[in-house]
Amino acid sequence: MSDTAAAAENGANPEHTRGGTYSVKGKEFTRDTRYINTRITADGQDGFPVEPGRYRLIAARACPWANRAIIVRRLLGLEDALSMGLAGPTHDARSWTFDLDPGGRDPVLGIERLQEAYFKRDPDYPRGITVPAVVDARTGAVVTNDFAQMTLDLSTEWREHHREGAPDLLPDAHRDEMDDVNRRVFTEVNNGVYRCGFAGSQEAYDDAYARLWTALDWLEDRLRDRRYLVGDTITEADVRLFTTLARFDAVYHGHFKCNRQKLAEMPVLWAYARDLFQTPGFGDTVDFRQIKEHYYIVHKDINPTGIVPVGPDLSGWVTPHGREALGGRPFGDGTPPGPVREGERVDPANTPLS
Amino acid sequence: MSDTAAAAENGANPEHTRGGTYSVKGKEFTRDTRYINTRITADGQDGFPVEPGRYRLIAARACPWANRAIIVRRLLGLEDALSMGLAGPTHDARSWTFDLDPGGRDPVLGIERLQEAYFKRDPDYPRGITVPAVVDARTGAVVTNDFAQMTLDLSTEWREHHREGAPDLLPDAHRDEMDDVNRRVFTEVNNGVYRCGFAGSQEAYDDAYARLWTALDWLEDRLRDRRYLVGDTITEADVRLFTTLARFDAVYHGHFKCNRQKLAEMPVLWAYARDLFQTPGFGDTVDFRQIKEHYYIVHKDINPTGIVPVGPDLSGWVTPHGREALGGRPFGDGTPPGPVREGERVDPANTPLS
Repeated sequence: MSDTAAAAENGANPEHTRGGTYSVKGKEFTRDTRYINTRITADGQDGFPVEPGRYRLIAARACPWANRAIIVRRLLGLEDALSMGLAGPTHDARSWTFDLDPGGRDPVLGIERLQEAYFKRDPDYPRGITVPAVVDARTGAVVTNDFAQMTLDLSTEWREHHREGAPDLLPDAHRDEMDDVNRRVFTEVNNGVYRCGFAGSQEAYDDAYARLWTALDWLEDRLRDRRYLVGDTITEADVRLFTTLARFDAVYHGHFKCNRQKLAEMPVLWAYARDLFQTPGFGDTVDFRQIKEHYYIVHKDINPTGIVPVGPDLSGWVTPHGREALGGRPFGDGTPPGPVREGERVDPANTPLS
Repeated sequence: MSDTAAAAENGANPEHTRGGTYSVKGKEFTRDTRYINTRITADGQDGFPVEPGRYRLIAARACPWANRAIIVRRLLGLEDALSMGLAGPTHDARSWTFDLDPGGRDPVLGIERLQEAYFKRDPDYPRGITVPAVVDARTGAVVTNDFAQMTLDLSTEWREHHREGAPDLLPDAHRDEMDDVNRRVFTEVNNGVYRCGFAGSQEAYDDAYARLWTALDWLEDRLRDRRYLVGDTITEADVRLFTTLARFDAVYHGHFKCNRQKLAEMPVLWAYARDLFQTPGFGDTVDFRQIKEHYYIVHKDINPTGIVPVGPDLSGWVTPHGREALGGRPFGDGTPPGPVREGERVDPANTPLS
């Protein structure tokens, strides 16, 4: 089952601009599954060939779905081929905005609101304005916001522009197994936390909670004696799980009521998450302040005061995890990425680790 | 400084009926400090002499301030002298109600709403309807709702009716030290969690969070090498801290954003809390389901969906705590209370410990 099919079945990016209303009374949370699924490919089959310098990835550090693309781009060393713009952590009912940039405009696209790039693609664009999105910098119009396909294409279609030593995040030998794992992680975990948080009834929440913890127990067990989700190297599957785990104690545990335990109380998953966090390309993309501000300020319907918690203490993220004992070769035959590029570093004040 | 003075300085019982509005925008949380401070005393100085069978303690298992009185009454063995009625966990804007009782009426007072007993005392009673309250069953009117004085009087004024082997919860030798500890615990911890949860601005919350964790660090340090807060026996000081700690991970951590750590991540305080929980008279008064339902359903302004979390996992409460190694004599020269009376037992389904 493809990721797109999984997305179609289970809904999609919840980082929609919904005017502060995410939980619908009496309803289970479901997603708008419709994406702009134009692809940027090596052969240009959809009219958008891979071309260094032409496209701009618009992400937001707050968003777990965009965080995937930020991580994959960095692991693969696509910084020169595909530039990146970052929207701020909060948005209004209409759009993510470039309020972190000087003058409040993306320096390449020259726009204040991501909505403008969607309207360049379709003046009547009817759906939520989501990140991640890839924009054609020539026209200023969104090419795609299909987050699941996007990272796969960065691995495959953009291969010619990968850095030397880029890891293979989609190893052929494990592709089927990875698809299975990705599907379960997507429906039960990535989406599962939202199903808890945006449940519109006690019954919908109770069901969502049970599904989530069944899946987390499965992962706790699966990762007990293997360092990574599939094979013995980091893959796209780890990237996808990581972006949810990174937000778990900071947001999902309290804000989304995913509170059987903290991640920090699941010994295996917590060690796994720390292992990835401490791997170049993962933790160095995580901005805990932006993550907390996004969820606690944007979801007015579940946190009307807009007050952002000071906790949790983050110092545990850099403690020893002991997972090296399981073996594994994080980057396989490749190498870790170098230092984060100037201009793309997370403000250390936003992620206090000591 | 007396407890009453501490209460007057810092506000009082927040389990007020406030119509779902607890957090006031832009404001630090403050309490209505005015109580009906009539006392029931051995000498009847206020017209209400101690008299077995005459009065009824109205409590609610959900409420930490009422939980104090439930614990003290049981430790002292006052069940026959002072009967107890229990309001349900949720209440509307006007009153706590007896919805747990057959027919929705307290079987002794015959009323549906605690408000009726307040109005019998004062038909124009202008303030919140709070638990705990002691009602004169002869007239059906509230005698007092001064929660801080109430438990002290159970220890002193009701001494003649204590069970054989009742502990001394207010040992003279430690009274001054206990008053100091109680004052700090009240303003910084018992009330401190509410100051976080009901903060009306980010700044007020940030300040409240810092105050709370300063105090919890102090307690973590103080209890490291002493089994109880003052002296080497259980005292009123332990009762007062316990009722907040029992609610910490279940409610305050997420709902009130007291989330630097869980209690379960504070090794000393967590062991101390478990030690008390496992002592007859403490854990057997705690109803986690009612506690969660109260906070998450009543505080509509901070949890508009009214959804009650399924977590946290409670099994840790009955794990070994190792605090016996610190010595101490829990009941001093006294003995533990016997089994909980028939009709006063917490429904085991509400506190699943395995």
